[in-house]
Amino acid sequence: MASSTTSRPAFSRWLSASNDITQQFLSIGAQPDFISLAGGLPAAEFYPNAAISEAMERALSRWGSKALEYGPVEGFLPLRQHIAERMSRQAVRSFTTDNVLLTVGAMQGLDLLGKVLIDPHERVVAQFPTYVGALDAWRPRSPSYQALDWDVDGATTADALRGAKFIYTVPNYSNPTGALVSIAARQALLEKAMEAGIWLVEDDPYLALQLDGTAVPSMLELHGRMEKTGSYQGPVIYLGTLSKSLVPGLRVGWAIASPDMIQALVLAKQSADLSGSMLTQALALELLEAGLEEAHVPEIVRHYRSRRDALCAAAATELGEWFEWEMPPGGMFVWMRSRHPAIDTDALYGFALSEKVAFVPGSAFDPAGKLRSAMRVNFTRNAPAVLEEGIARLAVATRRYLGSNC
Amino acid sequence: MASSTTSRPAFSRWLSASNDITQQFLSIGAQPDFISLAGGLPAAEFYPNAAISEAMERALSRWGSKALEYGPVEGFLPLRQHIAERMSRQAVRSFTTDNVLLTVGAMQGLDLLGKVLIDPHERVVAQFPTYVGALDAWRPRSPSYQALDWDVDGATTADALRGAKFIYTVPNYSNPTGALVSIAARQALLEKAMEAGIWLVEDDPYLALQLDGTAVPSMLELHGRMEKTGSYQGPVIYLGTLSKSLVPGLRVGWAIASPDMIQALVLAKQSADLSGSMLTQALALELLEAGLEEAHVPEIVRHYRSRRDALCAAAATELGEWFEWEMPPGGMFVWMRSRHPAIDTDALYGFALSEKVAFVPGSAFDPAGKLRSAMRVNFTRNAPAVLEEGIARLAVATRRYLGSNC
Repeated sequence: MASSTTSRPAFSRWLSASNDITQQFLSIGAQPDFISLAGGLPAAEFYPNAAISEAMERALSRWGSKALEYGPVEGFLPLRQHIAERMSRQAVRSFTTDNVLLTVGAMQGLDLLGKVLIDPHERVVAQFPTYVGALDAWRPRSPSYQALDWDVDGATTADALRGAKFIYTVPNYSNPTGALVSIAARQALLEKAMEAGIWLVEDDPYLALQLDGTAVPSMLELHGRMEKTGSYQGPVIYLGTLSKSLVPGLRVGWAIASPDMIQALVLAKQSADLSGSMLTQALALELLEAGLEEAHVPEIVRHYRSRRDALCAAAATELGEWFEWEMPPGGMFVWMRSRHPAIDTDALYGFALSEKVAFVPGSAFDPAGKLRSAMRVNFTRNAPAVLEEGIARLAVATRRYLGSNC
Repeated sequence: MASSTTSRPAFSRWLSASNDITQQFLSIGAQPDFISLAGGLPAAEFYPNAAISEAMERALSRWGSKALEYGPVEGFLPLRQHIAERMSRQAVRSFTTDNVLLTVGAMQGLDLLGKVLIDPHERVVAQFPTYVGALDAWRPRSPSYQALDWDVDGATTADALRGAKFIYTVPNYSNPTGALVSIAARQALLEKAMEAGIWLVEDDPYLALQLDGTAVPSMLELHGRMEKTGSYQGPVIYLGTLSKSLVPGLRVGWAIASPDMIQALVLAKQSADLSGSMLTQALALELLEAGLEEAHVPEIVRHYRSRRDALCAAAATELGEWFEWEMPPGGMFVWMRSRHPAIDTDALYGFALSEKVAFVPGSAFDPAGKLRSAMRVNFTRNAPAVLEEGIARLAVATRRYLGSNC
């Protein structure tokens, strides 16, 4: 945080605890010669530019001025309908437009959730390590955190949940760990959340990026099966997005939840930006109706799988002495945990930057900033040869760091 | 606020003080037979759809995947440059990209400002009556308010300002009053803000909608003239938008401020939505470079002028017995103050809705919700004949209301 050059009033307290790590990653990508394994960015070379350009033409001629207006705060109605129908098919139960709010990426859903649920020092039970964007989103609301234990019979009991506002999870190919949570653990958590009477946030940006194995039903689906009729009234707040399965630049995401929660989120969205862009929402509808997501996903999954494999193979050779990891069955990240007690990934980060390679240090995923024995490494953004070069640089950086350390 | 149907945790406290008035206005527009004089919506029939469609094609072929990416949090660099250069020409001093953040409409600028400046119960000095969107934006931050007196030698002294975080103003064709603030009053307020050492927010969505008279320089320009060189470091935080001069559906606005404030706002934006849509920002650049705003504004100004005149003429005949107002020299609104002590515009609103006409009751523009002797009436959205019918319905509603009241 740059300090003020004047004697003007201080910035809000939460800013001093903030960091610009995401801002850095979003701009580091532009530096030539730099290899960023940091962000959670899709591979831009596969974006379906031509199909998007055609869909945009169709959207503008189909909707005309309607696509250029302020929209309803809830978002473009035909897209809300499309999302509701899609989720109804997937979950084999009915969701209505009252269950759907369109957001500026799933990230805005996190921001709005913080606004409607967190008063200062209230408790959030969050899967640990925790997506840095969720911590960023909620920092202005000053919550306290408790780590979630995903184990079916694990330490997170309904008692531990009671008094918390909500549980935060990324069960599909988690950010940052890449882990896929089993159906048994999902079912157990859902039951605990219901017993404790709290909200259960299911952040699901990586759903489409299934690289191996079989998919597991979402907690929204699992709960939706219990109460089949009428508008969904359950405790699950599901966040989806087109940013990973299509392109991020539309900034189109959605929240699916009970109508009372949707209406609270709508009031928060009204106070955040009045409405999203009807133009990009109308474009998203056109893309979905044309089946572009179904056509595009298998192509990127094929590439992402070979990129993951290339990165993990290079890392096994170059970094295996110092780090260990599980091969993630999907998503965008490998979570590398240090095997060497002297490694502090915050300190390693500086050495990496000077070798022109970036990752995200584990501390970014810890509300207390203390997790310094791991790092998140992205495999989707760069071609296999670039990933291999990135891992090689990371090995040089680690060797230099450990040399300087002894 | 719909109450929760479950025993789940309560929503955040600010929501109980919120209202869905803007949400209502944004959806009321869609009801057939209803005449909304409520929202601040441009006239959709004049949107330059064809030019926008062509500009979108150019943007996609010029920028390709870059327009479909996550952007830097600060926004699409070429558009930031364009905004900085435009403001530099206008203010005859240099602004750099370090002074510019792109936002999702000017509304997001208000949300981000609240996040970076307001901790609970801190004081905002706001022009009274106050734009309902600003009150909405800051409600989650729980500020206290003090009314600003715009008079040059008025009661708002530097002493009264000291200890506040910022001053909030809409000096051009204010929302809700339509008033244009004189250069002397702007200069005086700027000096008071500098003396008190606080930020001065200049919210300027209606700049282009000058219907009569001459324009007055912005406070950003007035201050910029004092310190001519280098990146702007002053206390003015200026918010601009394309929503009123072109189309709202792009959701492209900007904040211009000192680099330390921009960096704080960037951190808040990172935590709100990661980045805006590069696609609509690239489209906005294309539209501005093609001079479409300069071409479009004179056309809408001509229509808005005749709509304002038609509404005011009809109101003089139909409502003059109960309300008085000044003819606004620009913007989108007439602020009608009741001349009849029995009129409570909150109560009148219900009668208006049953006559299928809407306005915004004065209470929406009062942090304390007590201003019930006035209403905001929009003249830009509807054709003259529709405005006349709307005013006629409002007269019927007023007569019924006063009849029921006696």
